[in-house]
Amino acid sequence: MTVARGRLVVFEGPEGAGKTTQLRHLCDWLFARQLPFTGVREPGGTALGNEIRRMLLEPGRVINARAEALLFMASRAQLIAEVVKPALERGELVLADRFFLSTYAYQVVGRGLPFDDVRAANRLATAGLVPDLTILLTLPAAVRDARVVARGGADRIESAGHWFHELVERAFKDCAAPAWQAAHPECGPIAAVNASGTEQEVLERVLTVMTGAIPDLFPVRNAAHA
Amino acid sequence: MTVARGRLVVFEGPEGAGKTTQLRHLCDWLFARQLPFTGVREPGGTALGNEIRRMLLEPGRVINARAEALLFMASRAQLIAEVVKPALERGELVLADRFFLSTYAYQVVGRGLPFDDVRAANRLATAGLVPDLTILLTLPAAVRDARVVARGGADRIESAGHWFHELVERAFKDCAAPAWQAAHPECGPIAAVNASGTEQEVLERVLTVMTGAIPDLFPVRNAAHA
Repeated sequence: MTVARGRLVVFEGPEGAGKTTQLRHLCDWLFARQLPFTGVREPGGTALGNEIRRMLLEPGRVINARAEALLFMASRAQLIAEVVKPALERGELVLADRFFLSTYAYQVVGRGLPFDDVRAANRLATAGLVPDLTILLTLPAAVRDARVVARGGADRIESAGHWFHELVERAFKDCAAPAWQAAHPECGPIAAVNASGTEQEVLERVLTVMTGAIPDLFPVRNAAHA
Repeated sequence: MTVARGRLVVFEGPEGAGKTTQLRHLCDWLFARQLPFTGVREPGGTALGNEIRRMLLEPGRVINARAEALLFMASRAQLIAEVVKPALERGELVLADRFFLSTYAYQVVGRGLPFDDVRAANRLATAGLVPDLTILLTLPAAVRDARVVARGGADRIESAGHWFHELVERAFKDCAAPAWQAAHPECGPIAAVNASGTEQEVLERVLTVMTGAIPDLFPVRNAAHA
C-alpha cells in the first residue's frame, strides 16, 4: 500500500494578524477529529533551527540584513529535511507558521535585498518544495498594532520601526493579487482570508478556504458533518 | 584625501595544506614591516559568525547539507558587512582563511548541491564582493592526511569520510585551471602555490605570487629591500 503524499499548508501575514491563534484553533479542530498533522514554526522547529531562532530574535543583536535572510533560510532547510519532508512522506498534513512569503515580505521588500538571489537561496533551502496552499491572514494595521502592543515586549524584528512594517504590510497585500501569484510559482496558491471578527468566525473562514482549495484535505470532516 | 581601496587576498585549499600556518607567517611578515592588515577566518570572525562556527563544527550535530551551506553563507555575509568592507574602505589589506572556493569545493562538489543556487546565495552573502587574489595551496593528499592526523581530533567536517575528501580535493584542483576561472568571474583570479617544502620556502612563494599579481600591494617591501 502506498501512502498518498501529505499536504503543506502555510499561514502567513504581518505580526498581529492572528496566525498563531488560528493555527492553535485549527490544531484543536484537527485533534478533535483525530486527523494526524504536523505543526511547524519558522524560524525554528529543529534543534539547529531553535538556536538560529534565538540568534535572530534576540533584542540588540547586530545582524546584517543578508546574514539575517540566510539564517532564516538555513533554519528552513533544516526544518524541511528533518520534519516537513518526512511528515509529507507519511501522508500527513503539515501546517507551517510562516514560509517563503515572509522571506519575501521582510527580507526582500522590507530590507531591500535582491529578489533573484533570495529566490535562488530559498530554492537551495527548500529543494524545490512548494506549499499546496498559503492562507494569508489580512487585518487593518491599526487592529494588528494594538494586538502586538497588548502582547508586550517586541522582539528584534517587531521593533524594526514603522517604515519597515509599512513595507512588509504592502508586500503581503501584493502577494494576494493573481498577477503576483502567476509570476511566483514557487509560492504555490495563496488565499487571502479576512482575519477580523471573532476567532471562531476566522477559523470557519480558514476551514472553508482550505477545503475549497484542497477538496480531499479532510476526509473525516464531511463524515462528521453528515 | 581619498584612501585607495584595500585588497582582499584569500587563502584556500583542502585541510592540511597549510593555510593557517602560512597566514600566520604572512601576518608576522606584515607586522615586521608595519603594514596594516586585517585577518579573517571562515566561518566566524564576528560574534554571530563565531556562534555559527560553533554550530557547524560541533561533532555529532545533525545538519542538513543545504542548511550547512546557508549557515556558511550567513557567517560570510556578517563578516563582510562588519569587518571586510570597513577594512577595505580604510585601504587595508584583508587576508581571508577560506571564502567562496571552499563553498564550491565542500558544498557544491562535496555535498552535491546545485551550483547555480549556491552561487546566487553567495552573491546574496557577498553583495558582489570579489577577491583580488586567491592563493590556492596545493600539496599531495598523503602529506595533508598525515598533518590532519598529527593535529589530532577531527571536527564534524574533517571527519566526513574519505570519498567526500576525494571530491573536495578534485574540486580544488579544478579551480586552478584557467578555463574554470574564466567561467567563474565571481571568484576573481586564482593562483595555485605549491605548499611542499619548508614553511619559509612556501612563504617566499606566496609573497612572490602576491606581489606578482598585485604589484602595488606592498609599497614598503621594495623600500625595505632597497
